[in-house]
Amino acid sequence: MIEPRTLKGFRDLLPAQAMAREQILETARRVYRSYGFAPIDTPALEYLEILTGKGSEETDKQLYRFTDNGGREVGLRFDLTVPFARFCAQHIGQLSMPFKRYHLASVWRGENTQRGRYREFMQCDFDTIGTVSPVADLEMVLVVHDLLAAIGLEKFTVRLNDRRVLGGVLDELGLSHCSTAVLRSLDKLGKATPQAVAVELESGGLSAEKAEKLLAMAMLSGPSKTVLEALQTLVGRSEIGQTGVAALRAVLDGVKQAGLADGRVIVDPSIARGLDYYTGIVLESFLEELPTLGSICSGGRYDNLAGLYTKQSLPGVGASLGIDRLLAGLEEVGRLSTVETPAEVFCVYFDEAHLADYLRITALIRSAGMAVEFFPEPRRVGQQIKVAVKKGFRLALLIGSDEFAAGTAQLKNLAAQTSCTVDWHGDVHVLVDAIHSQLEVIRTGH
Amino acid sequence: MIEPRTLKGFRDLLPAQAMAREQILETARRVYRSYGFAPIDTPALEYLEILTGKGSEETDKQLYRFTDNGGREVGLRFDLTVPFARFCAQHIGQLSMPFKRYHLASVWRGENTQRGRYREFMQCDFDTIGTVSPVADLEMVLVVHDLLAAIGLEKFTVRLNDRRVLGGVLDELGLSHCSTAVLRSLDKLGKATPQAVAVELESGGLSAEKAEKLLAMAMLSGPSKTVLEALQTLVGRSEIGQTGVAALRAVLDGVKQAGLADGRVIVDPSIARGLDYYTGIVLESFLEELPTLGSICSGGRYDNLAGLYTKQSLPGVGASLGIDRLLAGLEEVGRLSTVETPAEVFCVYFDEAHLADYLRITALIRSAGMAVEFFPEPRRVGQQIKVAVKKGFRLALLIGSDEFAAGTAQLKNLAAQTSCTVDWHGDVHVLVDAIHSQLEVIRTGH
Repeated sequence: MIEPRTLKGFRDLLPAQAMAREQILETARRVYRSYGFAPIDTPALEYLEILTGKGSEETDKQLYRFTDNGGREVGLRFDLTVPFARFCAQHIGQLSMPFKRYHLASVWRGENTQRGRYREFMQCDFDTIGTVSPVADLEMVLVVHDLLAAIGLEKFTVRLNDRRVLGGVLDELGLSHCSTAVLRSLDKLGKATPQAVAVELESGGLSAEKAEKLLAMAMLSGPSKTVLEALQTLVGRSEIGQTGVAALRAVLDGVKQAGLADGRVIVDPSIARGLDYYTGIVLESFLEELPTLGSICSGGRYDNLAGLYTKQSLPGVGASLGIDRLLAGLEEVGRLSTVETPAEVFCVYFDEAHLADYLRITALIRSAGMAVEFFPEPRRVGQQIKVAVKKGFRLALLIGSDEFAAGTAQLKNLAAQTSCTVDWHGDVHVLVDAIHSQLEVIRTGH
Repeated sequence: MIEPRTLKGFRDLLPAQAMAREQILETARRVYRSYGFAPIDTPALEYLEILTGKGSEETDKQLYRFTDNGGREVGLRFDLTVPFARFCAQHIGQLSMPFKRYHLASVWRGENTQRGRYREFMQCDFDTIGTVSPVADLEMVLVVHDLLAAIGLEKFTVRLNDRRVLGGVLDELGLSHCSTAVLRSLDKLGKATPQAVAVELESGGLSAEKAEKLLAMAMLSGPSKTVLEALQTLVGRSEIGQTGVAALRAVLDGVKQAGLADGRVIVDPSIARGLDYYTGIVLESFLEELPTLGSICSGGRYDNLAGLYTKQSLPGVGASLGIDRLLAGLEEVGRLSTVETPAEVFCVYFDEAHLADYLRITALIRSAGMAVEFFPEPRRVGQQIKVAVKKGFRLALLIGSDEFAAGTAQLKNLAAQTSCTVDWHGDVHVLVDAIHSQLEVIRTGH
């Protein structure tokens, strides 16, 4: 006997978890498509040189790599950006620019596992490449907003910054030469105290005054209009800084014109996105009810996607939803449904003599667009109902021989433990309509 | 510069192909759910001993296997059945029986690549375990039928057999001892001539008379009722054979009662499903327009799913759609759409001064449930329309400054090259309704 177990850092999804993930994936597809983003797919396995080409030491260490039976050095993708860059370089002649794609797929990283982090997880990326238009930047923000709203997250904030604003402030302070170190320190805000960050900045050679100015910038808060004005002052005459401030202003105007509620999208100068390859707008998104979860959807604008694989410059902008982290967070606060069935109606199998009727009735319920499970064994009714309740069905349909004889049926609301009788007189359409109405009542509460 | 290329036997999906696959996956989810099957997921990587436990030499050879950084022997799953067996054994205490699951996921096999076959492909499995009820067998047939019909395949046939019928005929001929060899030979029918199969059977030690009887059985055709009567005679007094014939009859009755059209599901005694682990009903499905494609959806009943991992017996029944093979077949006969966008409406970006209006209008089109791409750059109209046509948009929305001033808009049917003017007088809802109606006209043709 072989012990049934999953690898360390990997896990199965049971029905309730898999349904929750499917629902978010469906929402992501719908939102991405509504803006004209089209799906693509790439292989899980790539030539190792494709994956390591741009990788940091960190990703190289985490890579699942091996030699295949044909002697090729291969690896499992660790993100969707590197395969997308390879894809664009390879198919560039076939892609209409600007090219808008989404990609929902698993990636693998052999990292040390933490709470809610696994060695296999899904990413939900979308990007627009082949254009430097600020409309594409704005659209990224709108898509992230629409996505989080459509998922049903009630209290979220999309926080924006622009790398050029940071660059401008560094310019003004004469610190352009050490921007990487400064960004790395500022990125710790939130995890470390401002004092600790100030100490780190000063130990890197900054004067106390400059460190304080940088911290003051990163900690600006309040209405975006006020923050933008303060940033305008801080970037001074730096041209790149002014461009960044204007870009943020344009995005804020745009989200208002597109009808977004006030306060959903704000400017937050502390957002730096670490050492990523972003060059313009950057974005993170946070849930109010899960403050420790970190950003669940992040992205930004970059100058060149595929420089390792093609000479053609491909600027772009995009973001990624961390779906598995979001799901882990929602599960932790009890926000995930525990229902184990995607069907709403449970049809009890009373009586073998009426099998033909059950088949006809359940077929018509499905034709009417409802999902119904027919229990496959004519066991005791109580046993069947117990299974239905455990799985989370909302409505049970009970028709025994007496009911068939009388042309009636029982509809049982399994949560409320109430039931009603339908007189359908052998007309299945009347029965199907009654089931439909009952489900509406259960869904809407009236 | 690194050459951008995919591994031998692997491929990217470009938007048109990825959309076609997404559409079939969505259909599969909808149909599976409509019967109460719930999704699960399992890791792509498993302990090697889990994967090789039941594997034939053939699958062992095709396995992508390696040692991970933690020194574990691991492999990429080569099907969804072995992980499902492991899953059931591992979580058996949490699963309500009968347990109905579907699993749509990629699998990897390092096999020699053929037309339409890749080393990474998706499987779409569904199974009911924990019951021996014939209703579950019938339901498998109904699900396969509903799935192929919902995908929009017009001419398909679901062909049924029962392993017990074959067993019964072998019983009657006194050949039970060599059933594996006989099954392997009979399974070649269709690829080899009946004469060649007869020669193989005889070279295995069968008399010419017995070989002829077996061939006659496997080649029975015509109305299922007639075929069943002939099988009834052939199984003679074999109890197992009679059970098999009765089971096939019950399924045929059931599909009729569920309202399926005549001739969609037929009995075909040549279906043996090779050396698979099936023990009862077996099923294959064929497309009339793609006769050389082989079965695109196959399955059957088995006695025990997870015997390698648990002592608890788990009988079940299920089938699998070969989605990538189906897509390759449809592409070959030109049945796949070449449209590269999931959106229907293309909004031309005429005039930067009206950006706010475009944002408001496209946001409302999306709120009304339509997908619209707004071109991100105010380029020449002809250029934008060219992109829209290439991507396969159906409708273009054109509103320049003159139109804004006049309160009008042009709606251009891009396929028919016709256009109409809408007077919306600044009321965006009027415009959105007009777009909705135009799309309806394009979709329905009137």
